[in-house]
Amino acid sequence: MKNTQVILSARPQGMVKSSDFDIQTNPLEEVKEGELLIEIEYISLDPAMRGWMNEGTTYIKGVELGAVMRAFSAGKILESKNRDYKVGEYVSGLLGAQTYAVSNGQGLSRCDIEKGPLSWHLGILGMPGMTAFFGLKERGQPQAGETVFVSGAAGIVGSTVGQIAKVLGCKVVGTAGSDAKCRFLLEECGFDAAINYKTEDVDQKLKEYCPEGVSVFYDNVGGPLLDTVLANLARGARVVICGAISQYNQASFYGPKNYMKIVSARGILTGIIVFDFIKEYPRAVDQLSEWLNAGKMKTKEQIIDGIEQFPVALQKLFTGDNFGKLLIRV
Amino acid sequence: MKNTQVILSARPQGMVKSSDFDIQTNPLEEVKEGELLIEIEYISLDPAMRGWMNEGTTYIKGVELGAVMRAFSAGKILESKNRDYKVGEYVSGLLGAQTYAVSNGQGLSRCDIEKGPLSWHLGILGMPGMTAFFGLKERGQPQAGETVFVSGAAGIVGSTVGQIAKVLGCKVVGTAGSDAKCRFLLEECGFDAAINYKTEDVDQKLKEYCPEGVSVFYDNVGGPLLDTVLANLARGARVVICGAISQYNQASFYGPKNYMKIVSARGILTGIIVFDFIKEYPRAVDQLSEWLNAGKMKTKEQIIDGIEQFPVALQKLFTGDNFGKLLIRV
Repeated sequence: MKNTQVILSARPQGMVKSSDFDIQTNPLEEVKEGELLIEIEYISLDPAMRGWMNEGTTYIKGVELGAVMRAFSAGKILESKNRDYKVGEYVSGLLGAQTYAVSNGQGLSRCDIEKGPLSWHLGILGMPGMTAFFGLKERGQPQAGETVFVSGAAGIVGSTVGQIAKVLGCKVVGTAGSDAKCRFLLEECGFDAAINYKTEDVDQKLKEYCPEGVSVFYDNVGGPLLDTVLANLARGARVVICGAISQYNQASFYGPKNYMKIVSARGILTGIIVFDFIKEYPRAVDQLSEWLNAGKMKTKEQIIDGIEQFPVALQKLFTGDNFGKLLIRV
Repeated sequence: MKNTQVILSARPQGMVKSSDFDIQTNPLEEVKEGELLIEIEYISLDPAMRGWMNEGTTYIKGVELGAVMRAFSAGKILESKNRDYKVGEYVSGLLGAQTYAVSNGQGLSRCDIEKGPLSWHLGILGMPGMTAFFGLKERGQPQAGETVFVSGAAGIVGSTVGQIAKVLGCKVVGTAGSDAKCRFLLEECGFDAAINYKTEDVDQKLKEYCPEGVSVFYDNVGGPLLDTVLANLARGARVVICGAISQYNQASFYGPKNYMKIVSARGILTGIIVFDFIKEYPRAVDQLSEWLNAGKMKTKEQIIDGIEQFPVALQKLFTGDNFGKLLIRV
């Protein structure tokens, strides 16, 4: 059996390029005692990948040149020499961008496909959903009646954050990069207002939609938009930094000039590293699947077929050409 | 009787200039029922003044053009038509940059000169001391054994922060802008290390002095120095923004490019607005005067004679030519 793998072949300067990856077909490694073989069905494309392509360590080590690109993937167990896992079970984890993975079981999550289709376990029931759930609830601590503002709101994290906030009784406003995405937020996700940051004056619209100021700001985007929202915080605001997708491909990271607004608002800025909540994932998966199955939340996917599409698909994330949780179907 | 007053005559662009102020001698206003007349002895020069000179409102309204410059001042009551205050008592408050003030008593603090000389009530026992005390203790929440890093450490706020942190059992490292100021931190204030940011490589020295990272960062300075410290946070760090004196006279405020380091460190960024703690000032004054009188803390003053020196003295704050709490003796 052969394994098709996406190999990190160069460290990008600025925007990710297709030439930063090689697609290789290699012999499948042997499954040793304690290990299991997984046939990967879906590979997730996540903004965090841009950081993983850099040298050095932030919260996690960069991928080594020549190694399989790190990725959250999900699939079915084909063979098991590990007593904790049975053939036919579905699992997800950092299994890499490849068609087969051999794992010792460490860091794997079982995917209960009665809670939702396998692809959801890489999206709303997977890492992005967990990031939304714990980032909003544990860090943002929204109270019913408060205004929650989400940037990158049409993304899988942003749309999940907004919908959880709605379930919790908040007013929810978000930004996205097209009218179609804004319609999705209003019509499918139940947002109270959506701002197309490419065509509208965000500061003006924010003041119109949130005259009481922003109590929880869940930021996926960074850049000047972060400054605009900081200038409109309500007293006691919580700013939750999840990501800064507008900046990952920039040579110089944009620093928020308005950070002192956090001080005058008596606010706090904090962040979410989802791995810190790994032991609590099951209760979040249960809660989200309950809301999904009850029709209180929706999720949108954009599935691209073929592992060789990985490099092109990843670029869509950063150009905003994606719409919905972006996945490769192997 | 005549009142000599410092009037805000122009809004500065960039650095404060002497021509932004007029010194005027005006007739003293009448003391009405419920009011008191204070003969001002000391006027405090504080970094916050730069913000007060701007138009618009942050945590407090900007001073109007043509009005007496807002200032913390302290003096003796000459006349009282307010039953709460007696002639001969010492008080401080936002009494303005002038030789006499008429007040209705609102917002005044009594200065107990048995706890320390009147000038201290504008420094270590006044607003800057309160800013240090509550900012460090309530926002920074330092634990014994942790490393506290202070920028602008030789200033009245910074030196007080560092000395409180030493009393609390922390390791304390700070930056200042001259070797004399660094010696003061080491020899008088008991800092464990001091870095001259003008002549030393702060990042390198910080890594040398704080190999375990910075658990509490009390920032008075902002600018690129803020980024350097953010890159060296310990896990769970608390970043307390007090001020950004390096930026108040800049046309464009510097935003910290390394703010995502707060996320990877699982830290928080918060700020201190001292007025929020006004009801708790007495316990802080008692505690600080106890430490001062027991020889556990020291304070340094730079007193300039003559109210007409106000504009020149204020500029010293921003050029770093001050050394110790800067005051005008009227």
